[in-house]
Amino acid sequence: MTAFEPKNPGYRASAIAMFEGQPAMHTLGVVIVRLAPGEAELAMLHSPAFTQQNGFVHAGIITAGLDNACGVAAFTLMPREADILTVEFKTTLLAPAQGERFVFKAEVVKPGRTLTFCEAKAFAEHEGKTRLIATMTGTLMAMLPRGAPQTPRTSPAMRGD
Amino acid sequence: MTAFEPKNPGYRASAIAMFEGQPAMHTLGVVIVRLAPGEAELAMLHSPAFTQQNGFVHAGIITAGLDNACGVAAFTLMPREADILTVEFKTTLLAPAQGERFVFKAEVVKPGRTLTFCEAKAFAEHEGKTRLIATMTGTLMAMLPRGAPQTPRTSPAMRGD
Amino acid sequence: MTAFEPKNPGYRASAIAMFEGQPAMHTLGVVIVRLAPGEAELAMLHSPAFTQQNGFVHAGIITAGLDNACGVAAFTLMPREADILTVEFKTTLLAPAQGERFVFKAEVVKPGRTLTFCEAKAFAEHEGKTRLIATMTGTLMAMLPRGAPQTPRTSPAMRGD
Amino acid sequence: MTAFEPKNPGYRASAIAMFEGQPAMHTLGVVIVRLAPGEAELAMLHSPAFTQQNGFVHAGIITAGLDNACGVAAFTLMPREADILTVEFKTTLLAPAQGERFVFKAEVVKPGRTLTFCEAKAFAEHEGKTRLIATMTGTLMAMLPRGAPQTPRTSPAMRGD
Repeated sequence: MTAFEPKNPGYRASAIAMFEGQPAMHTLGVVIVRLAPGEAELAMLHSPAFTQQNGFVHAGIITAGLDNACGVAAFTLMPREADILTVEFKTTLLAPAQGERFVFKAEVVKPGRTLTFCEAKAFAEHEGKTRLIATMTGTLMAMLPRGAPQTPRTSPAMRGD
Repeated sequence: MTAFEPKNPGYRASAIAMFEGQPAMHTLGVVIVRLAPGEAELAMLHSPAFTQQNGFVHAGIITAGLDNACGVAAFTLMPREADILTVEFKTTLLAPAQGERFVFKAEVVKPGRTLTFCEAKAFAEHEGKTRLIATMTGTLMAMLPRGAPQTPRTSPAMRGD
Repeated sequence: MTAFEPKNPGYRASAIAMFEGQPAMHTLGVVIVRLAPGEAELAMLHSPAFTQQNGFVHAGIITAGLDNACGVAAFTLMPREADILTVEFKTTLLAPAQGERFVFKAEVVKPGRTLTFCEAKAFAEHEGKTRLIATMTGTLMAMLPRGAPQTPRTSPAMRGD
Repeated sequence: MTAFEPKNPGYRASAIAMFEGQPAMHTLGVVIVRLAPGEAELAMLHSPAFTQQNGFVHAGIITAGLDNACGVAAFTLMPREADILTVEFKTTLLAPAQGERFVFKAEVVKPGRTLTFCEAKAFAEHEGKTRLIATMTGTLMAMLPRGAPQTPRTSPAMRGD
């Protein structure tokens, strides 16, 4: 993979702030494990509260982790004043989400001024083994403040963080 | 849309039992609003615990609602002894999930012995207006107990409900 | 479905010109059957040259028809000076593409300044019956000339038609 | 990637026969470049007959190449008597299909008795440079003859080759 050059020198702090500003991530118990330009790794412990009828983690919850990994990975390459939103994603569920811990790894396939394309994989750690359980491809969009944009601004006010 | 003929005369009770057997749906506050052969409508109130950085409901949570609506719709047409799993889905996010209540409507596009194809729409009710905020297309799979299948059995043991 | 108001009063001529500018559509024998703001219907006769190993039309060719129907539908709502490109699409193949004639119907689900979301269905006409064989959801992007845009221009130079 | 063990010792001949049995591949000028268990690489020269309005190869044609690469990759891991069909795929278009030659590389992410999941990438070779222009994730299905299956048969009659 090509190494990406972040436009925002403070990309790490910005991405963490964006992530931490999401109550859903706290509720699901998702944390950031690793960050690099165009890459993100999140993790979550198993919680019975988010399972489906067979005791596996619900596909929507796995998707929330994958989507957020993509969002954080994409956000590391966006300008400081940008906010981010997900346009669409497809999740493929390869195996049941059975395990004690789940890891979501995303990387940017192609960054762009408006659209950024990402891929992500979800892994389940179960009884000492790690298994690929789901994949995602997604499109993320940078939202720049109208009028202002193009040059970096001081305050990421739109993100409300 | 064609009217579908359920193979399982007790499809309504089976679908409700499958849905109620999912702790994730209780945690998210999702309920069944309407059921018909090949159709399902779920609803959820806004909860700050499941929002992203701008106060909108997280795309993964909306996806959980859409996926479950597809699952319940598909399940109404499956034989009594079947369990169900999601193969893949794509979610398109048309507008922010802003509102007091969210509705997830799914219908079967084509049922099959092994694979069932569904479409779903998510709506946000906000200040008296209803807005389409997301769509899903998904593939669901019927899991039949090995050996036994083909003829209806008494106990849906695989679903553990 | 909401009625859409085209920004380009000459949307019909523009959409036809964009479509006719595509050699691939001539080669595949795809024609425009119907056009309305936010809607398009294309059709194609069966050709043995575009079949797969069982004599059915190849999924990629069906996808080309669906994608173009989405493109034309989206293009009817774009400003005159815009060019269009496809960002992504998902095709679900419900039944074999068996028939004498194929119809591709697309409609805009949500138009936008940058992104437009469409849905399309492919139908096969076979021995007097019409059958839904495939569906698509896709994201299309308006490409506006830098600097100039915002107000209508005279010449759709970017499209080279 | 894990090395896959083909169930059909004659997987190479079977995959080539399945591919060569598709008139659409001949018409588009697509050829097999490389085959391995769970992997396939196809290639196609640029042809003006399959371009869109800007002279780039049509997204549907690129999709046909990607889909076939997935199909061949999946087919190498299926039992001898199986036929194959595509269930669904998503194509993401990262850059215009501009070039003299196009390469489609697919690999199986997870094989299964019924469903096989694949990923593929399309590359354009243009003026001495190779560029990633599109990605696909797809689901393929093995169709086994009713009654007979499970044990290898002599004649792959369903494939008509």
